[in-house]
Amino acid sequence: MGQTKYAMGIDFGTESGRALLVRVGDGEEVASSVYEYKDGVIDEFLPGTHIKLEADWALQNPADYMETLKRTIPELLEKSGVNPQDVIGIGIDFTSCTMMPIDKEGTPLCLIDKYKNNPHSWVKLWKHHAAQPEADRINQVASERKEKFLARYGGKYSSEWFYSKALQILDEAPQIYEAADKLIEAADWIVLQLTGKERRNSCTAGYKALWDHDTGFPSQDYFRALDPRFEKVVDEKMPRNIYLLGTRAGGLTQEMARLTGLRERTPVAVGNVDAHVSVPAATITQPGKMLMVMGTSICHMMVDKELHLIPGACGIVKEGILPGYYGYEAGQSGVGDIFAWFVENCVPSKYFEEANKKGVNIHHLLEEKASLLKVGESGLLALDWWNGNRSVLVDADLSGLLLGCTLETKPEEIYRALIEATAFGTYKIINTFQENEVKIEELYACGGLPERNKLLMQIYADVTGRTIKVAASSQAPAFGSAMFGTVAARRENGGYDSIMEAAKNMAHLRRECFVPDGENHRGYERIYREYERLHDYFGRGENNVMKWLKKLRNK
Amino acid sequence: MGQTKYAMGIDFGTESGRALLVRVGDGEEVASSVYEYKDGVIDEFLPGTHIKLEADWALQNPADYMETLKRTIPELLEKSGVNPQDVIGIGIDFTSCTMMPIDKEGTPLCLIDKYKNNPHSWVKLWKHHAAQPEADRINQVASERKEKFLARYGGKYSSEWFYSKALQILDEAPQIYEAADKLIEAADWIVLQLTGKERRNSCTAGYKALWDHDTGFPSQDYFRALDPRFEKVVDEKMPRNIYLLGTRAGGLTQEMARLTGLRERTPVAVGNVDAHVSVPAATITQPGKMLMVMGTSICHMMVDKELHLIPGACGIVKEGILPGYYGYEAGQSGVGDIFAWFVENCVPSKYFEEANKKGVNIHHLLEEKASLLKVGESGLLALDWWNGNRSVLVDADLSGLLLGCTLETKPEEIYRALIEATAFGTYKIINTFQENEVKIEELYACGGLPERNKLLMQIYADVTGRTIKVAASSQAPAFGSAMFGTVAARRENGGYDSIMEAAKNMAHLRRECFVPDGENHRGYERIYREYERLHDYFGRGENNVMKWLKKLRNK
Repeated sequence: MGQTKYAMGIDFGTESGRALLVRVGDGEEVASSVYEYKDGVIDEFLPGTHIKLEADWALQNPADYMETLKRTIPELLEKSGVNPQDVIGIGIDFTSCTMMPIDKEGTPLCLIDKYKNNPHSWVKLWKHHAAQPEADRINQVASERKEKFLARYGGKYSSEWFYSKALQILDEAPQIYEAADKLIEAADWIVLQLTGKERRNSCTAGYKALWDHDTGFPSQDYFRALDPRFEKVVDEKMPRNIYLLGTRAGGLTQEMARLTGLRERTPVAVGNVDAHVSVPAATITQPGKMLMVMGTSICHMMVDKELHLIPGACGIVKEGILPGYYGYEAGQSGVGDIFAWFVENCVPSKYFEEANKKGVNIHHLLEEKASLLKVGESGLLALDWWNGNRSVLVDADLSGLLLGCTLETKPEEIYRALIEATAFGTYKIINTFQENEVKIEELYACGGLPERNKLLMQIYADVTGRTIKVAASSQAPAFGSAMFGTVAARRENGGYDSIMEAAKNMAHLRRECFVPDGENHRGYERIYREYERLHDYFGRGENNVMKWLKKLRNK
Repeated sequence: MGQTKYAMGIDFGTESGRALLVRVGDGEEVASSVYEYKDGVIDEFLPGTHIKLEADWALQNPADYMETLKRTIPELLEKSGVNPQDVIGIGIDFTSCTMMPIDKEGTPLCLIDKYKNNPHSWVKLWKHHAAQPEADRINQVASERKEKFLARYGGKYSSEWFYSKALQILDEAPQIYEAADKLIEAADWIVLQLTGKERRNSCTAGYKALWDHDTGFPSQDYFRALDPRFEKVVDEKMPRNIYLLGTRAGGLTQEMARLTGLRERTPVAVGNVDAHVSVPAATITQPGKMLMVMGTSICHMMVDKELHLIPGACGIVKEGILPGYYGYEAGQSGVGDIFAWFVENCVPSKYFEEANKKGVNIHHLLEEKASLLKVGESGLLALDWWNGNRSVLVDADLSGLLLGCTLETKPEEIYRALIEATAFGTYKIINTFQENEVKIEELYACGGLPERNKLLMQIYADVTGRTIKVAASSQAPAFGSAMFGTVAARRENGGYDSIMEAAKNMAHLRRECFVPDGENHRGYERIYREYERLHDYFGRGENNVMKWLKKLRNK
């Protein structure tokens, strides 16, 4: 004893898997390793074939997940020189809902010759959007039957979630549905691979599969109403036992120990979801603090002691984020994506030339120019719906709006207006939480944007009138997973007894935080009222021109 | 006799003067010549000084006008080899309201040492926008006094017009106002220079100085209410005699004959305005046909036998365009300007590279890509108010809007949406005329855009559901001025007795015209209803966010 202990977190993302080795005592990040998936996002052809996928499909290859383990874990050990005996626990997190059909042995059907040419045998990635008809059915039937669960999901079950994807398999490839011993979240599958134990976690079960801590899954009646063959989907394709976050799923199998170089029986925590696992990584262990996971989109995560049915929140799940709390999730479907679109499609070459000359990247140049503008100086106002609106309107068919253009409007003014629009979007979510009695006193941030774009962070602070603290780790999901790994190990093995305790010892914030400027906040408050008015006018049915145009476009 | 006769038209524009020599018998364009003004638009410093102009000022140097005559007329004669004896008449047209103070001899005060350092002694160009406070006063007093004339000007007198500029001189430089023997439109001043006769024309008097054919100028009471010193502005600074278009102002003076190489006493027509003089140049001599003068902005010109007070028309003037008719003018304040803004500020470098590779200009490339899109395919809808709205809302404080953006939106889609928005703007004007009993059966076009952008013309035809014919002359104003030159000469001197007769013989259309596609028109009809709804929502007071943002920006 007395030997320094470590935990490992592995974050399975959209394009790559990322592993992090963290010192248990103080959260020091000792080593990290990334594996870019060989097959990445599969959205054109099944790998190595001419089998073409339809529009809106997005698959992954589970072999890439295994390869991530095989490549990154040994690299962490090698880079750090840490003795595998001192790695006390492992946690993993995944994109979600990313799910697949497996056989009795846990082998994904897509890795079995008999099934591999059927696209439905593959992993359906979170952003597989081809199950919209199934999602529509799920919502319609739930609404007809007045199912209570819908209210915990912003009134709308998403095409991205578990039963939409499962029903699509049943609808389009009943033989695959039939052949599947189980349908499983990739997060739970990877834990099954690591430990040999199927231990479904309360986060994906709650947020994606309608599981509730107190009442369990929806009724068989409901599932039968969707499709008679779907009646027993829970009992036939997924167990009813759900394990709370932080639970030890099991120990590393002999085979996985051999594959990774870790010791056999190393404790492995049940799976988790990238955004959710970031909450304690950002030091949040109590109500009143909202985490923004800021990247291409924003996930807004927080916990509260009480259940408040907030309209437009994407999910409210007891035991979904932290033990003893209701976990709240909301989101904006386009943020960094919008700025990337803007830079790709709307920035003139002279700006790239100027950036080149200054030796800075184009986002940096735009930020520099935009930061010279005062609140309201651009005369522009935008609605940030380039990728629809997830919260609080839950409507994918809304679209972006830019208002106030003149012949003098400059690219940096539009860039700033787009940043402000996404900040107003976040402020709308915050206000909706507050109006529904979930107080938000402070904001926390993690993800790619806070490090790259200080102007954006300051605008978020000014718009929301709230201080924003930033997670110290630039890899918050993997860090949070490592924290859950220490909880799986428990104190007797050098870990912690709770995620709260782990957070207290391991999680840190960056020294720098973003403090709102009072005058800017007052200026933005007034502009936000105009944003809100347009938000309601175009978003709540008074003028449905956006939806009408989208329908026309897709005709 | 029997010798071929010619007429000369000179068009004084914003950046240059342009002269055209035209064969009287059939309108063949024999030679043209352009002089770029040495001092161009003066908007920073008075020429050759460090005297700085305030924001929104725009001046010209009348020496540039004289230089235009001196350079272009001899060049026309030389290029064409035409005998000056065979040039039977001259017509001129000008931007308007472009006005200046002159002394008793007709010398502009800015050319007199004593006054030249005062910016108010210079020519105020049409786009001098610094007289907004004066325009506001003119409107407020007219409205309080329930003056009837306002209704003929869309309910609003512009800061660009004659009394706004005259009042600004009185307000800010009373000594200049005092020193001025006359305040005169440049169009009338150049005629004064050519002939030695002050012959104010009915077009600028009517459209810019509130002169009415039947009732004359506004009352002295009204002018006194603006400022006691302004009571006798008409009698003191401008004569009450107004000459109808086509009148012979006089013959070329000996000095001007020497300067230009033309013969003394060559008939000169009274002055005219560029857009108005283009109407007969585009073959229009009767009601039912609307001319669009299409360039950075659009002027919509037409005539009717009756007076209909059309809300939002910029001017309705009896004898203002063609003899015996009410002339109607409406306009869109931003068209080509918006596309230029877009290309300058919003088109990414890869598009310029592609255009380069193909050896086409960027507008051409965008047009090519945009022409592949079907009606409604972009999913976008814009309000074309980048430069405010002239007709029918008459509100410079409105601004541009783009709606329907997604992460898939492409530059050519925005480009097309902007074209469509300007077409909807024209359609709104057409419909407003129609609703007020001025029928519009056909559209005619002249100016720079019809030659350069066929997609735009086709979209205008499809949106409006009307065939668009295009003037053959690419220099319609100078051409129309030459036509009025033949009328000043009259038939006994080889010219024509009326502009109608001149049009019949001289004016031509291009063979190609733009015929609306029925299906596209029906598609656009539906989208136009959405345009109209946004137009009214943001433009008629229901949501004043655009004006509010502009006020905030200008704070």
